[in-house]
Amino acid sequence: MRFSSGNWGLYTDFYELAMAQGYFYNGNKDDRAVFNYFFRTNPFGGGFTVFAGLQDFLDMLENFTFNDSDLNYLKTHGFDNGFLNYLKTFRFKGNIQCVNEGEIVFPNVPVMQIEGNIIEAQLIESFLLNILNFESLIATKAFRIKLAARGRKFSDFGLRRAQGLGAIQAGRAAIIGGASSTSNVLAGKIYNIPVSGTQAHSWIQSFNSEIEAFRSFAKIHPENTTLLVDTYDTLKSGIPNAIMVAKEMEKSGYRLKAVRLDSGDLAYLSKKARKMLDNEGLDYVKIIASNQLNEYVIKSLIVDQHAPIDFFGVGTELVTGKDEAALDGVYKLTEVNGRPKMKLSDNVEKITLPSKKQVIRYYDLQGKFYRDAIVTEDEDPDNVDIIYHPLHPELYTKVKGLPKESLLKPVIRDANLLKEEKTLTEIHNYLVSRASLLPDEHKRFISPHLYKAGISKKLMDTRNELAKKFK
Amino acid sequence: MRFSSGNWGLYTDFYELAMAQGYFYNGNKDDRAVFNYFFRTNPFGGGFTVFAGLQDFLDMLENFTFNDSDLNYLKTHGFDNGFLNYLKTFRFKGNIQCVNEGEIVFPNVPVMQIEGNIIEAQLIESFLLNILNFESLIATKAFRIKLAARGRKFSDFGLRRAQGLGAIQAGRAAIIGGASSTSNVLAGKIYNIPVSGTQAHSWIQSFNSEIEAFRSFAKIHPENTTLLVDTYDTLKSGIPNAIMVAKEMEKSGYRLKAVRLDSGDLAYLSKKARKMLDNEGLDYVKIIASNQLNEYVIKSLIVDQHAPIDFFGVGTELVTGKDEAALDGVYKLTEVNGRPKMKLSDNVEKITLPSKKQVIRYYDLQGKFYRDAIVTEDEDPDNVDIIYHPLHPELYTKVKGLPKESLLKPVIRDANLLKEEKTLTEIHNYLVSRASLLPDEHKRFISPHLYKAGISKKLMDTRNELAKKFK
Repeated sequence: MRFSSGNWGLYTDFYELAMAQGYFYNGNKDDRAVFNYFFRTNPFGGGFTVFAGLQDFLDMLENFTFNDSDLNYLKTHGFDNGFLNYLKTFRFKGNIQCVNEGEIVFPNVPVMQIEGNIIEAQLIESFLLNILNFESLIATKAFRIKLAARGRKFSDFGLRRAQGLGAIQAGRAAIIGGASSTSNVLAGKIYNIPVSGTQAHSWIQSFNSEIEAFRSFAKIHPENTTLLVDTYDTLKSGIPNAIMVAKEMEKSGYRLKAVRLDSGDLAYLSKKARKMLDNEGLDYVKIIASNQLNEYVIKSLIVDQHAPIDFFGVGTELVTGKDEAALDGVYKLTEVNGRPKMKLSDNVEKITLPSKKQVIRYYDLQGKFYRDAIVTEDEDPDNVDIIYHPLHPELYTKVKGLPKESLLKPVIRDANLLKEEKTLTEIHNYLVSRASLLPDEHKRFISPHLYKAGISKKLMDTRNELAKKFK
Repeated sequence: MRFSSGNWGLYTDFYELAMAQGYFYNGNKDDRAVFNYFFRTNPFGGGFTVFAGLQDFLDMLENFTFNDSDLNYLKTHGFDNGFLNYLKTFRFKGNIQCVNEGEIVFPNVPVMQIEGNIIEAQLIESFLLNILNFESLIATKAFRIKLAARGRKFSDFGLRRAQGLGAIQAGRAAIIGGASSTSNVLAGKIYNIPVSGTQAHSWIQSFNSEIEAFRSFAKIHPENTTLLVDTYDTLKSGIPNAIMVAKEMEKSGYRLKAVRLDSGDLAYLSKKARKMLDNEGLDYVKIIASNQLNEYVIKSLIVDQHAPIDFFGVGTELVTGKDEAALDGVYKLTEVNGRPKMKLSDNVEKITLPSKKQVIRYYDLQGKFYRDAIVTEDEDPDNVDIIYHPLHPELYTKVKGLPKESLLKPVIRDANLLKEEKTLTEIHNYLVSRASLLPDEHKRFISPHLYKAGISKKLMDTRNELAKKFK
């Protein structure tokens, strides 16, 4: 991560190191392994997921090394000198293919493909999952809020309720998903994100009166004053005092930027406040709303109640991805030395797909996303005419001749970074352009239409043969 | 935080800095302010909360300073030289009182009391909330799991699904709550926590057969081998192969430590596996279970189904506090220059309690926790005979003569740390000792009995007078 100049080799599960030492001494340390990162369920009961975290992952990967202190620590935990010596110069030197950061992605379709010797590919599993699962979760939440807000802006106000230092990555992911700024100054500095904020109730309370508190703030920050109006009584005290201060500001050539509502019924209060402000010729003063917001409340405020709210501050639910807490992404071995590998399971949906892969996205004749297909690496996508439901081969789709593109792009080859870093604005704009190609029925919050992904005949045959072999 | 040698001044909400500059220029920068940290709801529908995060908070507080790079960043965001010069030498120099880390705490009762000049007390709000809310959430979750596990041990396996770097603090808080180890090696190193782990499906898959994978692992880690038995078929392949390897290990003088079940029905499989192992004289081989566990599933496995599981690996739900995501802790101004302060609200339960306070815990005649009382700082607790429901004064409790103790202990006075750091084991043991004093009816997972907290007559009068003044 950018905010630490340190190295991150120990940011892993103990078993990755135990396995790595196993591979090291077992004589298979030079085995060439392929792993896939994918998830099984769209979060929030939604119809899509926004992929995020790539750049943070690459930054951590670059610093995924072990210093002397780490090696001494591992020595006290049963690792031996030969292996520790190997770790001393460890660096990931494999290949990584990935969808673009900001891509719209779907369950069970590989999002990232990792190839390397089995030790390096194994060791990076835990932090890869940690970063990609979390940032994708929050970027998806943020984009859902953006969809709900219908053009109104919103900001990440979540630091105080975020899950510890996860606040920093949440700030980044929120911007990818569509937040226009963050209250988290450190995230702002690290990721070059616009930061914003107003004032707390404590500011208002610290003065002898609300009007005095408002005046003082306006005097210190005349070009950027938003007044929090609910400390005592929003409509009887907060808004009248804000109007008074706005008029005083006008006399000095300034304009009150906004008032912030942080409790009570936001629809009722915003309508009343809007009217009171407009009646005084203060139609330029914006209304900001905060207090336990999420995509559902925002949608209801705007669509059902036409609340005249211009800007939303969204905290807890944005930065923690409430009610989901985690994207269920996994990292599965699919090939060793060219031999396909898979995991069986009593739960059929947990059976993994073997082989190194390509992911093809097909477009319908309106140019919208139509199907994703998972095919083996050695197939020519032009020869894939039909794709099959992974579990029910009697369900299939003809894709012959449809416009298509390959989603997994090389990101690292032989340890070399192949692409230039994108800004968060570029990533968000890419998301917006991709989301415009996703049919609306997949964007519904309630019971969205399921986007379908299929597999090629060759991949299906490989899987079935392998499964038969183990049974 | 310990894992970073850097400084943390920017780990705050933008508005804290905007207010701080406001106080600085407004002539009230030397105002003496008192803030209270408390929360409003026990997480998980439970009857108690475990307070955690104090030591991480103190570590960050010590490094809550601004370096040149931070100051340059703030300069580009509208802060001016006079204020930045103040920040250059900023250090928190106030007083902090707090309950012991690991204490059992309850809604609306101050957990920490902060006193200092208004700038320093304001600036630390955001990161204080960030750390204390999250670690308390996870410690509470972990302790609920410990209660459910009835003496069986469990480990934090959550790094891969944790909310980004929050994984590190989750690892610490899980230990406070009762986890016996973590899979997260960095958390292990930073906080001196036992680390543990087994192997992943990828280890098994990377070999040509399961038995070969088991043998290789046992050969490399003969003193610490747990075998993951569900890659292909738990009862037909995994357990029989594990038995074979266990017997081979016996011949070399070693003992297989455990098998791990990670899918399927854990009650059914653990019973079958236990029988198969016992039939072969391998009653010393433990059974570890993982896969989307939480306190409810663990309780059901043990109590309802008598599953012979010795150890649980708990991931996502432990480290994210699912389904809660956040403790709703707040930080409220209660006094300025000796004058009581409060926040009114349309929601009566959001009206804050003014004044600098003491928190008194009363014991019943069996020596169990009976009531918490919030009284003003200048009251003699010996003279508090009756405490009142904060919102319904017609409900009151006589506490005269009951055994009692003061919960808020001085932690920092005039910038000096007053107490020695506790180990995580000491903190957990303290929690256990305190929880033994909490009547069982507050520990129920479903509809627990509400622990009651009251306020003194003096505090009630202060609040009512102040409210009247504002109305």
